[in-house]
Amino acid sequence: MGAVKKLVVVGGVAGGMSAAARARRLSEDAEIVVFERGPHVSFANCGLPYHVAGVIADRKKLLVQTPESLRARFALDVRVETEVLAIDRPAKKVLVRERATGREYREGYDALVLSPGAEPVRPPLPGMDDPRVLTLRNLEDMDRVIAAATHAALPALVVGGGYIGLEMAEALRHRGGEVVVVERLPHVMGVADPEMVASVHDELRRNGVDLRLSTSVESFEADGDALVARLSDGSRLRCGFALMAVGVRPETRLAREAGLEIGPSGGIRVDPQMRTSDRSIWAVGDAVEVKDLARESPALIPLAGPANRQGRIAADAIFGRKTRYTATQGTAIVKVFGLSFAMTGASEASLARAGRKYRRVYVHPADHATYYPGAHPISLKLLFDPEDGRILGAQAVGAAGVDKRIDVIAVAQRAGLTVFDLEDLELCYAPQFGSAKDPVNMAGFVAANVVRGDALLWEPEELETLQPGQALVDVRSAREFAAGTIPGATNLPVDDLRAAIGELPRDKELLVFCQVGFRGYVAARLLSQRGFRVRNLSGGYKRYDMWRGTAAGQAAESAREDGSPEEMEVTP
Amino acid sequence: MGAVKKLVVVGGVAGGMSAAARARRLSEDAEIVVFERGPHVSFANCGLPYHVAGVIADRKKLLVQTPESLRARFALDVRVETEVLAIDRPAKKVLVRERATGREYREGYDALVLSPGAEPVRPPLPGMDDPRVLTLRNLEDMDRVIAAATHAALPALVVGGGYIGLEMAEALRHRGGEVVVVERLPHVMGVADPEMVASVHDELRRNGVDLRLSTSVESFEADGDALVARLSDGSRLRCGFALMAVGVRPETRLAREAGLEIGPSGGIRVDPQMRTSDRSIWAVGDAVEVKDLARESPALIPLAGPANRQGRIAADAIFGRKTRYTATQGTAIVKVFGLSFAMTGASEASLARAGRKYRRVYVHPADHATYYPGAHPISLKLLFDPEDGRILGAQAVGAAGVDKRIDVIAVAQRAGLTVFDLEDLELCYAPQFGSAKDPVNMAGFVAANVVRGDALLWEPEELETLQPGQALVDVRSAREFAAGTIPGATNLPVDDLRAAIGELPRDKELLVFCQVGFRGYVAARLLSQRGFRVRNLSGGYKRYDMWRGTAAGQAAESAREDGSPEEMEVTP
Repeated sequence: MGAVKKLVVVGGVAGGMSAAARARRLSEDAEIVVFERGPHVSFANCGLPYHVAGVIADRKKLLVQTPESLRARFALDVRVETEVLAIDRPAKKVLVRERATGREYREGYDALVLSPGAEPVRPPLPGMDDPRVLTLRNLEDMDRVIAAATHAALPALVVGGGYIGLEMAEALRHRGGEVVVVERLPHVMGVADPEMVASVHDELRRNGVDLRLSTSVESFEADGDALVARLSDGSRLRCGFALMAVGVRPETRLAREAGLEIGPSGGIRVDPQMRTSDRSIWAVGDAVEVKDLARESPALIPLAGPANRQGRIAADAIFGRKTRYTATQGTAIVKVFGLSFAMTGASEASLARAGRKYRRVYVHPADHATYYPGAHPISLKLLFDPEDGRILGAQAVGAAGVDKRIDVIAVAQRAGLTVFDLEDLELCYAPQFGSAKDPVNMAGFVAANVVRGDALLWEPEELETLQPGQALVDVRSAREFAAGTIPGATNLPVDDLRAAIGELPRDKELLVFCQVGFRGYVAARLLSQRGFRVRNLSGGYKRYDMWRGTAAGQAAESAREDGSPEEMEVTP
Repeated sequence: MGAVKKLVVVGGVAGGMSAAARARRLSEDAEIVVFERGPHVSFANCGLPYHVAGVIADRKKLLVQTPESLRARFALDVRVETEVLAIDRPAKKVLVRERATGREYREGYDALVLSPGAEPVRPPLPGMDDPRVLTLRNLEDMDRVIAAATHAALPALVVGGGYIGLEMAEALRHRGGEVVVVERLPHVMGVADPEMVASVHDELRRNGVDLRLSTSVESFEADGDALVARLSDGSRLRCGFALMAVGVRPETRLAREAGLEIGPSGGIRVDPQMRTSDRSIWAVGDAVEVKDLARESPALIPLAGPANRQGRIAADAIFGRKTRYTATQGTAIVKVFGLSFAMTGASEASLARAGRKYRRVYVHPADHATYYPGAHPISLKLLFDPEDGRILGAQAVGAAGVDKRIDVIAVAQRAGLTVFDLEDLELCYAPQFGSAKDPVNMAGFVAANVVRGDALLWEPEELETLQPGQALVDVRSAREFAAGTIPGATNLPVDDLRAAIGELPRDKELLVFCQVGFRGYVAARLLSQRGFRVRNLSGGYKRYDMWRGTAAGQAAESAREDGSPEEMEVTP
């Protein structure tokens, strides 16, 4: 195509606005028109829950740019409250409607960028049209939630325990109201692996959130001042209002109606330069299908960072540059009261679904040197290729330092590094910030031991099928053992192992464990060199505890309660 | 060599202890003896200043391991207060002396690991033998500093403004005493580039530290209760005690006397498996010469992380594994009151010394979204190859989030990534943790613009040689301009540029600047597309301010004071 004289952008948030601003920097001559359906452009959508909470006191802080500021700075023609109704591809025109006046008109383009975003899913439940059933996407939605929370004496019902659901649950608790969270799955944060968010459940409950897992809403009805939700467990919940946060779906209506190709994931299909199946139309942000970095498959991954990046790349492409979008990793973080959960790359569940081979390890180091005050443990799970050790994904949860470790692993994964490379990473160390062996190095050591075959691990799931030929050995101290252990385990502290080695059964496979995995590893190295068949519990008792915090773990351990295995007889 | 039956380790801290513990995990059969000259092994040497400060109240917290705990856990034969006097290489024996009894004996080895560390430099000044002239390496040194600080009513003198000097200055201020820091260079943190630590000078002074730059101690003398230091500026400083923190030198006496090869940097020469020129002797930690990752030259880089890693690798090598040490990046961080300074890779000064071509950019983004409370700016400098954009190093200073950004760049550098890859990094974003465009992405954008030729930059150093054909244009707001600008600049806010474009001189090169570099970039893109010769100040007015905080910048701006360039005549 020739030089672009006129660029039209549909959607003035994140990706769309990045495209428009970047376009101006590349072309002072182009006419650039941005249509935004809502009253605001470039607002801080990730900040909405924090204004609800009162943490961001001034609502205006959420308005990062205005049409006026964008006109002054970038000579953009930003038209808010203007909806794009249709694309006339042959004529290269969009049909738009001014919401205030109802006036419709056509606007021509040489290049068109679609950044329609994703809309909150509203499941077709009876009673969904009650005005107290809310969603959260923009400032107007936020205002409605605040008004509802201000007026209602009854609890707020948050439907869905994903990012937005949890941030809003915290925000509403912060305002002082009662909050019920209903989540259809047995765990919050559907993108996470169950055991990694078991502590998030505890954190929510500790902070007064009434969390109902494996529960869904079946219908709403009005009952005077109350909105009554009928739940899948048969109970009826009287609340002041409900916030539906059960996910988002890409807004592809415009693209579909224009006949643009839609990918298998349901997002607009684009090439690496964000171009759609029409050579004059680009698409960016939550409405497009991306390549998932770890699984190399098409996916919908609605995140602000990638949206901005894609906007920039679309502008580059339109003005003749060669920048390419590679893939989305899905790096993300959510703070839930005093805990943060973050992840990058694939989850175990998603790898399993894709039939991809992987291994997993768990470490639980402190966020900084334990001899310095204020250290908090991080539980870090690393997923990697069992053959070459390539990093596939990571998840972490803890009170501090979680964002840093996931960022570090995100870079390593993007660079194609392996668990062996993680051993070598040289990261900032002073006792306030980390340890000479950083948690990421620790994860690398453990994972590299697995790939090299130095560490044979066992997993808590094996407790479900424990055999008589296996013995559980708790190598922690007597005090730790007394405070709680895995049912059926014998205590033999690692420091007493060499003295007691003659007493250990040579006909059994020893399943050792400690608190986080390190003493168990030391014990396993010792015992295997002495000819024992031995494996170490990946991630230790903490990992067992995380597993026991999942629905699967709970069920398995309840079933085992009556039939604990025979304890070994050992005199340490 | 055959199977190692007996391993002897010289030095029981960091690298030495890592080697011993790893060795045990690889061989349950080997006899492992660790000699340590001091009374403690595996102590937290990076924690010493924080016990002086009282932040780590319990001294015992610094003792991570004891000989007893290491015997119990790893069956190590740890002999403290035992000095290794000589190595008899042909006989494969070390000669040792028990410090308490004076008894000397020989101990044979199959493999020997040297981890002697580095000792504080004590320059040969008159009066250095006064017992109040202290250094800090171990717990006994720390106890002496605490005793001196407790008894002295006079100020403490810290000689040297490196990591230890600054941490100790803060610690001593924390105890409530007066502190004078004397630094020979015009700036603290000798490994840093001067402009990156100008704010650290302010922070020290704001916290009551009497900082004397470009000053050295010439002698000490006793005067009653006072230790009097004569300084290079002719003044005499009465203090209670002095802490010499002017650097460390590798302890290579044992290695030298045994005829082991010493590298050009003065450290013990080792191969990638940490083996010295003797096939039965390995060396690790602060005493060895490493390869500098960015400059690919031999260097001494004394850091805890690499020491631990090297210990592990030496043990691997001794027991037949192939692990290799690659190179040291020099990733490090120091907290100075409310600021942190961190760096990775090469500094600009070290690249310049090595004659390596490089480019530099500066960004000053907030550590997290500015609409969320508590955001603090980070000043981030990125050094990269001007041709291919490969990352060479980075430095950052700020109140929060500095460790994370340097860690992220450290991984990117180690993976061989370029500034183009930094644009694409997908990092954790929620408003408490970062921005949709993280500071590292921002640095990537700016640097990539430079490599692509989209951004022509100017540097504050050019102010020294400003020509009549050049004009300084401050594109910030009138309010910002009024609050302080670069002498000689004309104010023309970026948002007024398009209107004023007819008034701008076409015969001059326009040197534009804003606060941090972004509006200047927008202005430069606009003006260059309109045919002006224009460059943008890298890092903006903040960068100018950092430069003005250096000795070179101060001198240059003083010289310019009388002869400011003619201001442009523009009616915006």
